[in-house]
Amino acid sequence: MTAAGPEAQAPGDDLAAAVRSGSRRALARAITLVESDREDHRAQARALLGDLLQSITPSLRIGVSGAPGAGKSTLIEALGLVACDDGMRPAVLAIDPSSAIAGGSILGDKTRMGELARRPEAFIRPSPAGTQQGGVARRTRETILLAEAAGHDPVLVETVGAGQSEHAVTGMVDLLLLVVAPGGGDDLQAMKRGIMELADIVVVSKADGDLRSAAERALRDHDSATQLSMSRHPGFPAEVVLCSAVSGEGIGELWTAIGRRADALAEAGVLERMRGEQRAAAMWDEVRAGLVAAAADSRDGESATSLEAQVREGSLLPEVAAERLIQGQLA
Amino acid sequence: MTAAGPEAQAPGDDLAAAVRSGSRRALARAITLVESDREDHRAQARALLGDLLQSITPSLRIGVSGAPGAGKSTLIEALGLVACDDGMRPAVLAIDPSSAIAGGSILGDKTRMGELARRPEAFIRPSPAGTQQGGVARRTRETILLAEAAGHDPVLVETVGAGQSEHAVTGMVDLLLLVVAPGGGDDLQAMKRGIMELADIVVVSKADGDLRSAAERALRDHDSATQLSMSRHPGFPAEVVLCSAVSGEGIGELWTAIGRRADALAEAGVLERMRGEQRAAAMWDEVRAGLVAAAADSRDGESATSLEAQVREGSLLPEVAAERLIQGQLA
Repeated sequence: MTAAGPEAQAPGDDLAAAVRSGSRRALARAITLVESDREDHRAQARALLGDLLQSITPSLRIGVSGAPGAGKSTLIEALGLVACDDGMRPAVLAIDPSSAIAGGSILGDKTRMGELARRPEAFIRPSPAGTQQGGVARRTRETILLAEAAGHDPVLVETVGAGQSEHAVTGMVDLLLLVVAPGGGDDLQAMKRGIMELADIVVVSKADGDLRSAAERALRDHDSATQLSMSRHPGFPAEVVLCSAVSGEGIGELWTAIGRRADALAEAGVLERMRGEQRAAAMWDEVRAGLVAAAADSRDGESATSLEAQVREGSLLPEVAAERLIQGQLA
Repeated sequence: MTAAGPEAQAPGDDLAAAVRSGSRRALARAITLVESDREDHRAQARALLGDLLQSITPSLRIGVSGAPGAGKSTLIEALGLVACDDGMRPAVLAIDPSSAIAGGSILGDKTRMGELARRPEAFIRPSPAGTQQGGVARRTRETILLAEAAGHDPVLVETVGAGQSEHAVTGMVDLLLLVVAPGGGDDLQAMKRGIMELADIVVVSKADGDLRSAAERALRDHDSATQLSMSRHPGFPAEVVLCSAVSGEGIGELWTAIGRRADALAEAGVLERMRGEQRAAAMWDEVRAGLVAAAADSRDGESATSLEAQVREGSLLPEVAAERLIQGQLA
């Protein structure tokens, strides 16, 4: 309503239209804005997202997880190409909460998905340079929204990291694929780390050549494992699919299994409910982060960190600390 | 420092000393105070707990979960009696988040634990009459603290309910026992509902008479199931113990297994870290509840409920809603 600075307004308006038109360059620019920590960029990013939000149709969001070397990138590219051939416009994003520590970047080497990258209807975004972990989830959520505003569907989100990134990604995707290489012990690791239960579909990858029989054995093992462990959605047991991205075998079946599961979850109302819960959880995560930041900024109030420390050691009641924290905000 | 009303001060001082002295009547009265929703009672309860908190030595907190009829009460009584014989002073509490809906009350019939109830060193508290669910966790946490202030150790917390109460209780106990009756299909249900992964020890109950061989079969099944599913604590796989509360067989072994696991977790520093995390999580739950209540009370600010609804349907960014919520508190 009131006059806003030209920096905050002008690029947002242009950019929103350009993103909506499906321009890959505009989308890339918008994502860079969303990834920035600068105050003015955050304001612009919020304005842009607020503008785009009204016209977003949710895509099918597919998380792809698995140990390094399990074949995630090859599989994502194969799925992306199948989606393109189906007349869809896939986007590939990456989430890597550990990149701040490791200093590395997944998907950094775009040539790994060279064939998909050459398709004009596809969009591939490597993971951003590492910043503090707290912002990773928000950035990824907002990047997914931007890709959807640009008309991309499905959105494939590749995760890397030890456990925590899989848990984070389940908070923002509709389906989680867990990719395991045959005979590598990935499956046992996944079960130990509690990731198996998060998977909608377990993909036994690299089922070609010498590894064929090992893959078939892994399939049988996983079938019984997924029957034993429960799935993310009670009543919808996880599926197991054998794939070879090299020979292309199983990719079509996997694509069908993804669609079948998404349809079943949508029909049962699970997808819609889960999306609502994911968004609400994200809001409360932001409230928590915001309160910690606000309390840390205020000179008079007790810091949330010090209150939490007292609660942790048991010398202060959680309820009392919470009251002080809220009162500190209210005062 | 300033003069407080006699209602807020006098009973707290007396009561704190009486609770500390180990009086069962005082403990029961203190718990009633903690369970009350009345504003003045809440203030008294907080003062009492704040007073007691400094002198509390954490007990071993054992959650006992399982389907109705699995034999939880019989098992708890048997464990309580073993603890008494070991010179300890067990307390038995109940958590039942569903009682508000069901109208029922577990442990309502104290005579179910008649032998333990007659022991002067034991304390048994039936679940409170159902009130709104939000308060159940806080009340149970505070009741555990009161029992500890009165010198009770271990504190056994019985849970009933479909999944959610088990998840709630893991946020407040050191160990979770999952009781399954042989051949009843409880085991499969537990796995489907994702409870198996929460258990530290799976207790196959009623391993007597006709059910003996079924129990032994169940033990074998569970052994492989717990090997497949992961445990609450990576590196500490869940144990499976066969018990008969009737014949007393296995109760001693279970008691030993409980102690062994508690020691192992304590030695590895897992117990202390987990307790800290539980307390911090409780604080943030209270912050969340407090903000919702505060926002609902304020006339000017947007209600947290309405903001959350917009976020759920996807028409408002989580970050923006969070900001408004916090700003509403700050204004």
